[in-house]
Amino acid sequence: MKLAAFGEDAFLRELQDRVPLSEHVSIGIGDDAAAISVPDGELVLLTVDTLVEGTHFLWKTTPPRFLGRKAVAVSASDIAAMGGVALGVLLSLSVSGDLEVETLRQIVDGAAERCSELGMALVGGNLARSDGRAVVDVTVLGHTESGKTLRRGGARAGDAIFVSGKIGASAVGLWLLQQGAALSPSGGAIVPDALREGPLQFAEPCIRAHLDPEPRLALGRELRARDLATACIDVSDGLSLDLHRLCRASGTGARIEEQALPLAAKALAWKREHGRDAVQAALSGGEDYELLFTTRDTSAIEAFRDTCDIALTRIGEMTPDENAVELVRRDGSVEPLSARGWDHFQERRS
Amino acid sequence: MKLAAFGEDAFLRELQDRVPLSEHVSIGIGDDAAAISVPDGELVLLTVDTLVEGTHFLWKTTPPRFLGRKAVAVSASDIAAMGGVALGVLLSLSVSGDLEVETLRQIVDGAAERCSELGMALVGGNLARSDGRAVVDVTVLGHTESGKTLRRGGARAGDAIFVSGKIGASAVGLWLLQQGAALSPSGGAIVPDALREGPLQFAEPCIRAHLDPEPRLALGRELRARDLATACIDVSDGLSLDLHRLCRASGTGARIEEQALPLAAKALAWKREHGRDAVQAALSGGEDYELLFTTRDTSAIEAFRDTCDIALTRIGEMTPDENAVELVRRDGSVEPLSARGWDHFQERRS
Repeated sequence: MKLAAFGEDAFLRELQDRVPLSEHVSIGIGDDAAAISVPDGELVLLTVDTLVEGTHFLWKTTPPRFLGRKAVAVSASDIAAMGGVALGVLLSLSVSGDLEVETLRQIVDGAAERCSELGMALVGGNLARSDGRAVVDVTVLGHTESGKTLRRGGARAGDAIFVSGKIGASAVGLWLLQQGAALSPSGGAIVPDALREGPLQFAEPCIRAHLDPEPRLALGRELRARDLATACIDVSDGLSLDLHRLCRASGTGARIEEQALPLAAKALAWKREHGRDAVQAALSGGEDYELLFTTRDTSAIEAFRDTCDIALTRIGEMTPDENAVELVRRDGSVEPLSARGWDHFQERRS
Repeated sequence: MKLAAFGEDAFLRELQDRVPLSEHVSIGIGDDAAAISVPDGELVLLTVDTLVEGTHFLWKTTPPRFLGRKAVAVSASDIAAMGGVALGVLLSLSVSGDLEVETLRQIVDGAAERCSELGMALVGGNLARSDGRAVVDVTVLGHTESGKTLRRGGARAGDAIFVSGKIGASAVGLWLLQQGAALSPSGGAIVPDALREGPLQFAEPCIRAHLDPEPRLALGRELRARDLATACIDVSDGLSLDLHRLCRASGTGARIEEQALPLAAKALAWKREHGRDAVQAALSGGEDYELLFTTRDTSAIEAFRDTCDIALTRIGEMTPDENAVELVRRDGSVEPLSARGWDHFQERRS
């Protein structure tokens, strides 16, 4: 059945029954606003991010359940970058009346499922008709201890730069999807024979990194609670662009080393066989949702790393000159690192 | 200059300088998330609402400044209906790369201006490219005293039903705009000669009611603080539909009286001259953003009304039968009041 025949109110009534509450939620879906308990003395964190059809996703390559999951994860990643605890989510959908009600249910179920996995509750939202591209807008509310928030602007020259996890898998995943690979609704990778030259084991994690990213909420909370980082940002638009943003906020420059970058190596090697530049893909690909952070105490990070199940890699250091963000190549040559990343309005990697 | 040439990052940097902070805001625009202080012991309220091009607004009839103002007011109205204090706003825009940067500035300036007027701060947001219809998504964060929230579901049979202000002006305003009237960017009404048969003085308040509604934040707070209302909802999709929602949440029916309805009378009379049914327009027109509430203590409401500068009108009472929402006509006849209102997906007043 199409949404135009089903109606907004019928859908919202159904939604109310499909989404579980949590102990923090006094009022969930179904009233004029949601009501949530936040611990006394904590700062409330608030962020919104958007996935737009044609800009951030295509229906063809994105199963609706994963659209819901990804929209939640992408917004939660901003709370991770502040070192916060994520509590509640609003899901605002602007979709065509031609959309199947079943598709909408899968988006909502995916979002609700991802909320549960991340310790959050889906507390409300909105459903609006848009005869253009579908827009999925997710607000996340969280909280953090006052005065201990992880900011973008706290880095100083000499601080070491770290990044969590691997960089570039999501860009490879996007490329695979564009070439005809897919994720089934249940989450298994479907890879066309033409792409099977490399080992299939690399395809699924990359596709999953792109369609079902993992926000680093626990890592962000630990960095904040242990006071380990001087600045932090999540890698959403590409490491290059996000490093530029961190530098701008901190009033510093930065120098990173190609040989230190934790590239999703085998996958990138496989991709390179297909004619792409692995380092460029890693630095400007975006959508990694890893944390890029700086520290004055590298040994404390190294000690913490031993207790932590996420890779934390030192990739360079902050420098005094605000206008210099540099990449040291494997041969020792130094080149400016442009603020490459996805600027959707400029229709290119800017 | 078009947004595609200007770029997202350039715009967001500029935005950061254009929007004032407030005492409650620890971190505003420019980091991964905003951070806001909420009084200890209070519940956090969270709501989102959306204006979509072609569904909720047309560029032709909506000056960008008023699009920003209205998007903020519409979302704040949900906080009013909960009896809350509104604190912070996220503005999420999905727009075409062809949009003029100046248009976007006016939307943002309108939103920031309306936030200031309503005691809120614009604390963050998102800017995404959408090659379809523009989507303006506004999240409002507020707070309210625990256990004293105004809910939709608290009404019981016998409670009196009240509505604030006048009903129907926004519907008349929309009709005037569709007929060629306009609001200038500075807020003055421009009404074509063909529409000037009735007195011009009725045009401007109606157009303003549609393009620049007033959320009843102070009224909602008073109703909650004085414990005057048993249930409350804001009239966003038409009094009929919103009354049905309140009844459904409360498990009751309702009976309202045509002769008691506080129609925006002169304007409606004028509109009727042009061939519209005033009562239908008032009950299903929507976008009034008045508060519809119930009480067990009519005399307390009447005493409060004497101290209040907003009209509060008793329009009927709640009844026991869940499935009966009725309208008593001027001639004493009783007819079912259908859940008429705007269901955008059903492409008609449902």
